[in-house]
Amino acid sequence: MNYKMVAHLIGRIMLVMAIFMCLPLLIAVIKQEDTISGFLISIGVHAGIGLLFGLKRPNHTELYAKEGAVVVGLGWLITSLLGALPFYISGEIPSYINAFFETVSGFTTTGASILRNIEGLSQSALFWRSFTHWIGGMGVLVFVLAIMPKSHASQSIHIMRAESPGPQVGKLVSRMRNTARILYGIYIALTLLEILSLKLVGMPWFDSVLHSFATAGTGGFSIKNASIAAYDSASVDLIISVFMTLFGINFSLFYLILTGNILQALKSEELHWYLGIIATATLLISLNILPQYQTFLEALRYAFFQVASITTTTGFITADYEAWPIFSQSILILLMFFGACAGSTGGGIKVSRILILGKVAFRELRQQLRPRSVTALKLEGKQLDSGVVAGVMAYMSIYTFIIVISIILLGLDDFSYTSNFSAVITCVNNVGPGLGAVGPSRNFALYSDFSKIILSIDMLAGRLELIPIVMLLSPATWKRR
Amino acid sequence: MNYKMVAHLIGRIMLVMAIFMCLPLLIAVIKQEDTISGFLISIGVHAGIGLLFGLKRPNHTELYAKEGAVVVGLGWLITSLLGALPFYISGEIPSYINAFFETVSGFTTTGASILRNIEGLSQSALFWRSFTHWIGGMGVLVFVLAIMPKSHASQSIHIMRAESPGPQVGKLVSRMRNTARILYGIYIALTLLEILSLKLVGMPWFDSVLHSFATAGTGGFSIKNASIAAYDSASVDLIISVFMTLFGINFSLFYLILTGNILQALKSEELHWYLGIIATATLLISLNILPQYQTFLEALRYAFFQVASITTTTGFITADYEAWPIFSQSILILLMFFGACAGSTGGGIKVSRILILGKVAFRELRQQLRPRSVTALKLEGKQLDSGVVAGVMAYMSIYTFIIVISIILLGLDDFSYTSNFSAVITCVNNVGPGLGAVGPSRNFALYSDFSKIILSIDMLAGRLELIPIVMLLSPATWKRR
Repeated sequence: MNYKMVAHLIGRIMLVMAIFMCLPLLIAVIKQEDTISGFLISIGVHAGIGLLFGLKRPNHTELYAKEGAVVVGLGWLITSLLGALPFYISGEIPSYINAFFETVSGFTTTGASILRNIEGLSQSALFWRSFTHWIGGMGVLVFVLAIMPKSHASQSIHIMRAESPGPQVGKLVSRMRNTARILYGIYIALTLLEILSLKLVGMPWFDSVLHSFATAGTGGFSIKNASIAAYDSASVDLIISVFMTLFGINFSLFYLILTGNILQALKSEELHWYLGIIATATLLISLNILPQYQTFLEALRYAFFQVASITTTTGFITADYEAWPIFSQSILILLMFFGACAGSTGGGIKVSRILILGKVAFRELRQQLRPRSVTALKLEGKQLDSGVVAGVMAYMSIYTFIIVISIILLGLDDFSYTSNFSAVITCVNNVGPGLGAVGPSRNFALYSDFSKIILSIDMLAGRLELIPIVMLLSPATWKRR
Repeated sequence: MNYKMVAHLIGRIMLVMAIFMCLPLLIAVIKQEDTISGFLISIGVHAGIGLLFGLKRPNHTELYAKEGAVVVGLGWLITSLLGALPFYISGEIPSYINAFFETVSGFTTTGASILRNIEGLSQSALFWRSFTHWIGGMGVLVFVLAIMPKSHASQSIHIMRAESPGPQVGKLVSRMRNTARILYGIYIALTLLEILSLKLVGMPWFDSVLHSFATAGTGGFSIKNASIAAYDSASVDLIISVFMTLFGINFSLFYLILTGNILQALKSEELHWYLGIIATATLLISLNILPQYQTFLEALRYAFFQVASITTTTGFITADYEAWPIFSQSILILLMFFGACAGSTGGGIKVSRILILGKVAFRELRQQLRPRSVTALKLEGKQLDSGVVAGVMAYMSIYTFIIVISIILLGLDDFSYTSNFSAVITCVNNVGPGLGAVGPSRNFALYSDFSKIILSIDMLAGRLELIPIVMLLSPATWKRR
């Protein structure tokens, strides 16, 4: 293990975070809020660590797969541990565990909250809270990577692999630095477009910016206790629904569209399934909840919003879906697992993994019918090698294992099984709201500190696609060879 | 599709069932119960179909994989449809859907019941109800196979493959007829041993026989409303716990022991994990429920019984586990998925499949640490080929798909999500009791007919390891080529 290089890279992340934190500090200063000292101290801590490790490059800069995973896992953990400081020092979130939970939830773009009264937070704290979503969305480390010198490109692949959502990074990894810049360009452009759209239909600037951060990262923190329902506006609902759907699409498709390959982008198998799932679920739920609304259009509005919000693992809320029939709730729970497209800012299992699992199952059934037929598995027109398939299977096993252990450990708190089940599901898939004790109208405050730590690990494991966190927790990683 | 041969084999099954039904008829005659005509008519229907199709062997007797699956799927379906007749005709279960549900639950050795007052049933009906467990336990079709002429051995493999629980039938298939006879010998011997043990500790003959039927098939139907709790006897609890555990073991291990290979049997990896899971779960639950009981021994007694009952997917009850802490309940729900060993009468995913999934996950993690290392997957000391691994993955995908669709469809009834979730889980894994509306002290009567049909399909799919039922429902199976 190249400890010096690991420390160096984490130092660089700290420097970037110190710079990011200047934005909420600026707001605190302008608005003369009590959070100024909290942000100042936090920036100091980040900058201190950053200057200590991040400036001087070590002699040996080799970075292997193991270090890549450790940098990512440790980087996200430390970022969350220190990112919680402004909330804690300023006293806006008096319990450190709560502040940590909220920050992990922010960076992992989960959006699960322990706050009972969100609107009681200062504007600078609200800004930092939503900003963590935006930072987390595309990954602090991919950001570091984008400003990394060219010679490190081969190492960056290990980091990007560990951090990018979905089973395959695809062609994009070839020219890392350029790619990262283009992805950020798309990310920033879409965010700006959403801010302007929301402002146009009457949302205040501050609200527009913060909700766009949360949409872009598919996070789901709102600055209102009632989430997006607080605006009670069909145009706001529609705009956010559409942007949530957009941010759940594989970013490499936007890249293809930008480079003129529109037809190729529209041919994406994953995209068809993703949009098909959203359309089908929206229609089924609209019909199911129709008796609770005035018109079909109204039912459609609430159904589309909630389906897009859950499928993309954003977690905004416009309707108390626990008041909907169990049929609709069951579909929403299913969508929590599905998640968005690989290569998007969304969480969950990802549509492409579900597709691979489905294809393996169909091939098996076909072989049962005609034992002598041999058929290759294809995704997006390309043949899947057995390594990818085994990888998906391993992913699903670890994923299930983490869920099962977490649900059992949460059983030590005495909430209902549904609450524990949905709390774990919503955290590991980075969605946000669940059912029961963690339903759309409630929050995670009542869980014990122990459970909050378990759920924080779940959020990190889900966001980093399991492997880095499992490796961080595995003794074998730390054994000298 | 060789329709004539399929009809012929199903005809033979009907003949066997007609003979089986003479036993409860005998009881009805001796006890002078009102069910006599019900059994007589049912025997007539079975014998009629049997004589029509089962006597004359068709000219072409080829049987391929597809026909094997169809015989199994259709055989179990028809057996359940007609096996429900005695309950329905006698009026003991006035709704045909309820009678069908109860019979499917019996043959699939699930043990989920729609009866509100079990003790209100006549003795002959109770006998038939428990007897379906015993018949289902080792498979009506394997029985047919055992009395089949030798020349059909190669075809029998397709049937046994489709019907045997677990991912691999193993060495036993080589000499089919002998094997089936030996397996039945073990099955009958263990059943007799349990009957005698229960009788010895004071259970009446009738109760001993019927509860032994339900244990042998890992079914779980009791003849008491309070299940095994009705006897309130530590010795009864212990005997049934031990026999449930025994019937959850791979029968080929008993075969090995009988042929003198005791050491080889004790080396079984699956056995170690199976017993380890039961021991660990029992210990954890005992400690967790300790405050609710007088002594540790008492807690151990109830914990061991419930763990063995759920892990082996039997479903007997001695304690209202819904009154236990959520931690214990979460472990029990997990055990419903695990199930027993491959090649036992138990249901669930099976320990060997879980082992394969775990091994794939561990190999993936090891490869992340040391990308150049290549390690072979081994189970029971033998290398697993990629076909078996892909098969397990396909199995898990189909399994998940069936669960998800069923939960969503059950959402059309307005029970809680926990009830629907646990109803589907307990049926597809052939366990019996669930949580909430289908908890240990309640039953499946309140679900709609539509939901009961869905749950019946789940029970059949789970018992037949999915593939035959999926093929039965697939249009491609019925297409002429």
